[in-house]
Amino acid sequence: MSEFSRKAAENLTQIRELKPLIHNITNFVVMNYTANVLLATGASPVMAHAEHEVEDMVAFAGSLVLNIGTLTDKWVASMIKAGKKATELNTPIILDPVGAGATPFRTATAKEILQETSVHVVRGNASEILALRNSQSVVTKGVDSLHTVEEVAATAALLAQELETTLAVTGPVDLVTDGDRVLHISNGHSLMPFVTGTGCSATAIVGAFAAVDPDPVSAAATALAFFGLAGEKAGETAGGPGSFMTLLLDKLYMMTPEELESGCRIEEG
Amino acid sequence: MSEFSRKAAENLTQIRELKPLIHNITNFVVMNYTANVLLATGASPVMAHAEHEVEDMVAFAGSLVLNIGTLTDKWVASMIKAGKKATELNTPIILDPVGAGATPFRTATAKEILQETSVHVVRGNASEILALRNSQSVVTKGVDSLHTVEEVAATAALLAQELETTLAVTGPVDLVTDGDRVLHISNGHSLMPFVTGTGCSATAIVGAFAAVDPDPVSAAATALAFFGLAGEKAGETAGGPGSFMTLLLDKLYMMTPEELESGCRIEEG
Amino acid sequence: MSEFSRKAAENLTQIRELKPLIHNITNFVVMNYTANVLLATGASPVMAHAEHEVEDMVAFAGSLVLNIGTLTDKWVASMIKAGKKATELNTPIILDPVGAGATPFRTATAKEILQETSVHVVRGNASEILALRNSQSVVTKGVDSLHTVEEVAATAALLAQELETTLAVTGPVDLVTDGDRVLHISNGHSLMPFVTGTGCSATAIVGAFAAVDPDPVSAAATALAFFGLAGEKAGETAGGPGSFMTLLLDKLYMMTPEELESGCRIEEG
Repeated sequence: MSEFSRKAAENLTQIRELKPLIHNITNFVVMNYTANVLLATGASPVMAHAEHEVEDMVAFAGSLVLNIGTLTDKWVASMIKAGKKATELNTPIILDPVGAGATPFRTATAKEILQETSVHVVRGNASEILALRNSQSVVTKGVDSLHTVEEVAATAALLAQELETTLAVTGPVDLVTDGDRVLHISNGHSLMPFVTGTGCSATAIVGAFAAVDPDPVSAAATALAFFGLAGEKAGETAGGPGSFMTLLLDKLYMMTPEELESGCRIEEG
Repeated sequence: MSEFSRKAAENLTQIRELKPLIHNITNFVVMNYTANVLLATGASPVMAHAEHEVEDMVAFAGSLVLNIGTLTDKWVASMIKAGKKATELNTPIILDPVGAGATPFRTATAKEILQETSVHVVRGNASEILALRNSQSVVTKGVDSLHTVEEVAATAALLAQELETTLAVTGPVDLVTDGDRVLHISNGHSLMPFVTGTGCSATAIVGAFAAVDPDPVSAAATALAFFGLAGEKAGETAGGPGSFMTLLLDKLYMMTPEELESGCRIEEG
Repeated sequence: MSEFSRKAAENLTQIRELKPLIHNITNFVVMNYTANVLLATGASPVMAHAEHEVEDMVAFAGSLVLNIGTLTDKWVASMIKAGKKATELNTPIILDPVGAGATPFRTATAKEILQETSVHVVRGNASEILALRNSQSVVTKGVDSLHTVEEVAATAALLAQELETTLAVTGPVDLVTDGDRVLHISNGHSLMPFVTGTGCSATAIVGAFAAVDPDPVSAAATALAFFGLAGEKAGETAGGPGSFMTLLLDKLYMMTPEELESGCRIEEG
């Protein structure tokens, strides 16, 4: 068991003790499930997106989760406003660039948030994360030309340096890097992609872990291990994606720090 | 068994016979679950928030449920418009002041709705409800200084008189008062706070009961007993909050008026 | 077994192979469940409603699903914009006129979409569909005066000719007609009306089937049979609407083309 296994258990214990408020400005599709995932984990979710109140709300929060899954201009303005306040207060911001690369509006919005606020962790899949690189980027390869785990890790590390943030790239094996350290997390279950919002929920859980663990690499990796391990446990008895999404909430809630410590698979390098 | 046990059974029977249309202007997080809770109860939910149609829609409704969980100016305007029409038509309005006290925008909006429309019942937790008092209020104590059931009841009764409405204050034991009568409802389950939208669902069910029972105190108390009892039944076999939220819908749907009459725990005083 | 049983199995096989992107502009209540229904079926849902990006998004899509369940002016504008682009690209548009007939705003919006874009299939209940007829319509009877299956079928066929589209009218027995052919689909379960968004989910599945089957009549009928059959299987063990909605996702995901071929009940005439 690595230091990260112990850290994962410590973080989970802290979340359940402190019940940090996680302020989410997120998409309509996943609001309900994300809120339930955060409650089952032990955190206190709040969703608030009005320009009038985002600064007031984020002032109480342990972290701010920004998710661009169903955007409009007003929502972007609120995200930026909340993000600037969070930056001022040193409150960690977790960005989920849903669909970056799919439309120019989404790519531009994700980049604007990265530029205007101090993003602590970006959580996305490989193509969303690669869409965040600048036109001058040293990263020139696309997702399809990254064939080995080493190539993906090296590219992600370069991009993390360029964007000056921590990247959490999820997939069959997850990868977390701040450009210096690289961690691989191999917890998870094959039904996860068949439930909408599992990626967004992973992002929200990174928010909960970041509220109690100041190191973005450790917070992101332990959060993904916790979520993936709950997925593994849910998958043992699920009869399909419907019962999987129900059981996933049960398993998040029931998981003890000891189970997390022994089941989490985080490896360096 | 009190008169309220019989009244609870009667109300449930009526809802299933008449299937009253409940017009909800509510928050994004709970829309789906609230609609399912109302369907499982036997009512007919509709969600509509466009300024163009809220007056047309509320004209068909047995009650109007206003919930300020994810606000913006446009939504506030629609709530006020629908509320004024409901007031004109003597259609009961149930207000859920989600997060009142947390941000000035929410507190001000909840107070505006109370002022501009005739609210039949307000359903919230103790801190949300206390946030509704005026600056001139005779209620000067905060939530943390209310230590006994009697203190809470006395304060709620004063506030109900001041706001000229019925208050349904939910918590480990729920309290309903119109300033004159005070009822305590002790149905419920400890997993409820781990599912998002259980408070909002309780509010929606108060809407369904108010559509068939003109007495706001009796409607609110019997609705909370019904919802809490379904929670107790769901909790018997739930493996965590995920299966609890699924079972809660099953138990609402399956509950007979006889089971409600014998299981509901409403006490006066 | 009819040609449609074989076609249903073929369509399902195709969806799972091609994973068509289904672009939904739909209502807040059902977004999560609809996305999960599409994922469980094997398609790739995306929800996007910003005027800035709907044209970019629909350009990748196998079909466009427009659902007017929780409308405002901005959403209507985005639906029309996306619909015009889809029309230009010959991408099938599936319209769900939720609540047409209930308020003038909804009726007018559904008619505007029919006029401004080329709608491939309209999926609704009988009263919603009848609300779409013009003031000059040859259809003069209301829902309540249609007593026999033959009367409903004849009226629907007339209306399909008038609106120049395919109509999928769901109820205890579903009916699909393009004005020429008439199909009846008798799969389904009595718990379906107790889960919010089952109608909207049926519409989304019609979108998935239309993305792989160019014949609107066959696509709509096979989609409704698939959804109804999954409902039957879910109903076998459901303990109420909560477990039904969970099991429905499991059964959609687990259904094999062979099971669909043998269980689907589509009849001509």
